[in-house]
Amino acid sequence: MKKYKLNNFKLNRRDLLAGTASLGAMTFASKSVLSDENKSKNLPPNLPEWTSELGEGVDANPYGMPSEFEKNVIRRNVEWLTASTESSVNFTPIQDLEGIVTPNGLCFERHHGGVSIINPKDFRLMINGLVDREMIFTLEDLKRFPQVNKFYFLECAANGGMEWRGSQLNGCQYTFGMIHNVQYTGVKLSDLILETGLKPKAKWVLAEGSDSSGMTRSIPIEKILDDCIIAWAMNGEALRSEQGYPARLIVPGWEGNMWVKWIRRLEFGDMPYMTREETSKYTDLLSDGKARMFTWVMDAKSVVTSPSPEKPILHKGIHQLRGLAWSGRGKIKRVDVSLDGGKNWKTAELHEPIMSKSLARFTFPFEWNGQELLIQSRAIDETNYVQPTIQELQKIRGVNSIYHNNSIATWLVSKTGKVDNVRLG
Amino acid sequence: MKKYKLNNFKLNRRDLLAGTASLGAMTFASKSVLSDENKSKNLPPNLPEWTSELGEGVDANPYGMPSEFEKNVIRRNVEWLTASTESSVNFTPIQDLEGIVTPNGLCFERHHGGVSIINPKDFRLMINGLVDREMIFTLEDLKRFPQVNKFYFLECAANGGMEWRGSQLNGCQYTFGMIHNVQYTGVKLSDLILETGLKPKAKWVLAEGSDSSGMTRSIPIEKILDDCIIAWAMNGEALRSEQGYPARLIVPGWEGNMWVKWIRRLEFGDMPYMTREETSKYTDLLSDGKARMFTWVMDAKSVVTSPSPEKPILHKGIHQLRGLAWSGRGKIKRVDVSLDGGKNWKTAELHEPIMSKSLARFTFPFEWNGQELLIQSRAIDETNYVQPTIQELQKIRGVNSIYHNNSIATWLVSKTGKVDNVRLG
Repeated sequence: MKKYKLNNFKLNRRDLLAGTASLGAMTFASKSVLSDENKSKNLPPNLPEWTSELGEGVDANPYGMPSEFEKNVIRRNVEWLTASTESSVNFTPIQDLEGIVTPNGLCFERHHGGVSIINPKDFRLMINGLVDREMIFTLEDLKRFPQVNKFYFLECAANGGMEWRGSQLNGCQYTFGMIHNVQYTGVKLSDLILETGLKPKAKWVLAEGSDSSGMTRSIPIEKILDDCIIAWAMNGEALRSEQGYPARLIVPGWEGNMWVKWIRRLEFGDMPYMTREETSKYTDLLSDGKARMFTWVMDAKSVVTSPSPEKPILHKGIHQLRGLAWSGRGKIKRVDVSLDGGKNWKTAELHEPIMSKSLARFTFPFEWNGQELLIQSRAIDETNYVQPTIQELQKIRGVNSIYHNNSIATWLVSKTGKVDNVRLG
Repeated sequence: MKKYKLNNFKLNRRDLLAGTASLGAMTFASKSVLSDENKSKNLPPNLPEWTSELGEGVDANPYGMPSEFEKNVIRRNVEWLTASTESSVNFTPIQDLEGIVTPNGLCFERHHGGVSIINPKDFRLMINGLVDREMIFTLEDLKRFPQVNKFYFLECAANGGMEWRGSQLNGCQYTFGMIHNVQYTGVKLSDLILETGLKPKAKWVLAEGSDSSGMTRSIPIEKILDDCIIAWAMNGEALRSEQGYPARLIVPGWEGNMWVKWIRRLEFGDMPYMTREETSKYTDLLSDGKARMFTWVMDAKSVVTSPSPEKPILHKGIHQLRGLAWSGRGKIKRVDVSLDGGKNWKTAELHEPIMSKSLARFTFPFEWNGQELLIQSRAIDETNYVQPTIQELQKIRGVNSIYHNNSIATWLVSKTGKVDNVRLG
């Protein structure tokens, strides 16, 4: 056999086993000898029970669901954030997820008037205002245009908003979980506009949803023509109802509130429409009482998903730190990890594919011997923007906002392996 | 406003509208005037009913499911192929899917003894045979190794097998649906072997599943060390039960039968194990009575998913032909499309990301004016392998096999827009 090249990350076997012994892993001598704890009839070298009985067949689930042992991996809401469930939010369990695809059933929801149920035959997209030809499109019409397939993250502007003044929620899911990442299929708005034409004065678009909140947002025409999409599919299948079935607006890299669901109408105008969602809401109240408005881009951000408050360290030895990074300005270029609260940084491994305005997965091996850790991650995007500390953000924006908190979080790992969300400095 | 650059594909507005009129799309004059057919109270400019009532809130579904209007998008089996559901197959509804991600709930299933239900706490992976240290790993152990996140297609060797002698099944789902494509998370076998060591004589691995079929396959060590993975996650979440929960073997680009589910044991040996699944099954019976064995690689292949037998053409005008291409040897380099049964070919658009041994999405705009079409697609991979015709395959392999049919399919579009699976020549 050819000698094969060792992986760059050389596992320290002693460290690995020091940790795994308590979980049942073991080494064999020349003959297999099982420890007492492994003498369950289902463990090797015994054949487990499930080998001796037929399992369920292929007719069981025409549309499959997760294993019963994964029932803890669900979207969750926070009771005190939920004035009414129809105008509320839940969170993606990012601490339980791997890779960069968010399964459709776990994509967080944010509704302002609940989920509209729309028969796709009744769907119409109306385009009016400063266009040469006002038009109405059916869903089938939209599918006859050139199509794009793009992975994009969608992050709520308020993701981590409860953490502006201090750490309030002790969970990765609750502090970072208003994000998901799927592959969308749809038609570029710039292609639809080839049909409608545009008047020279058209500078803004009002995007209107058909849900009961009357969701409306203004979007500058440069963004509309750059990369906005009307999407009807996510991760290969039709949009989920809670994500705007049968079609929604995709505004890559910009705050989720603008990605109008159950899209009904696009009106082209010559100025912003100053809707509720961009005046009283989704603005950033500064210390002097003024508010930043039209703060659309989601700046570079990252999170360590494991270890995290929901994912304590269970044993000593080598572990793989895992996390996600993203930027509304393009591709993630680098992610740094610190285990000592930002004093020392090391570069994490980024996993391909790295796509613009999409989640990027990073991993970082580390060894834990029972010491306290202050775990942080810091994203740098292709524009060389560096994810800031909360102090840097507060210096500019004060402490009144609940939006656009992209600061570095800190997970404190105690000597028992417990992990807490803490605020440094 | 800046003049923006027109898309390369210039839509012919007259053609588009010729088709869409019957579906309700229309142009406006200077004032909005709705045609009779659009006078439903739910159509623009009216506000639809669902705008006036609150929808379901965020507590409704902690793990979401598709819209009720998508209940037709499911895995399906073929009754006459199903001797018993426990040893059977169903098919991914690829004609309904977009992009390259297959939702986990729609990934086709092939079982030989039904679905084993395994508590992840009871999972063990045993590595024995020609290694320096025989070891047993828990699932938690595996997660402490360096991790990989990779998109790979999984295709059953028998995908399209019923079509060797002629077209038997008139459906895209049934003739091409034994394939799915997800992002896997797991540990490379080459990293596990750093722990166990390998004896110089180790040349083959026996991969053994713990399901009741006693699934076993032999894999050459070069492949194991190249890119094989033990995976615990698909599309971000835990493997589905029917896909081998809590862990399965990933053998990128090779026939699905080798991707042993509910993986229990890897035994290193010095020769192939000659299991049932590589002697009486998963071999290709040639015309002279001899059989090809160890035909592992899934060669380049493609399918037009729309139009297809399940996706007839409903109206004249411009349409987007859509399809999937893949190769077990690497990346897809090009896909050609023919509308006249292979006489003339044009190059389709490939959609990024194009990844090695992963599905690639292609689209191709075409105009239909009611004429008969013979639609074909032909994949070319980065090794310059060209997807063959069925005649080319039969010349070499005869007509006895049911495996490794990667030939070009033909969809006949009739003058009514109906689409049928036909055999040319």
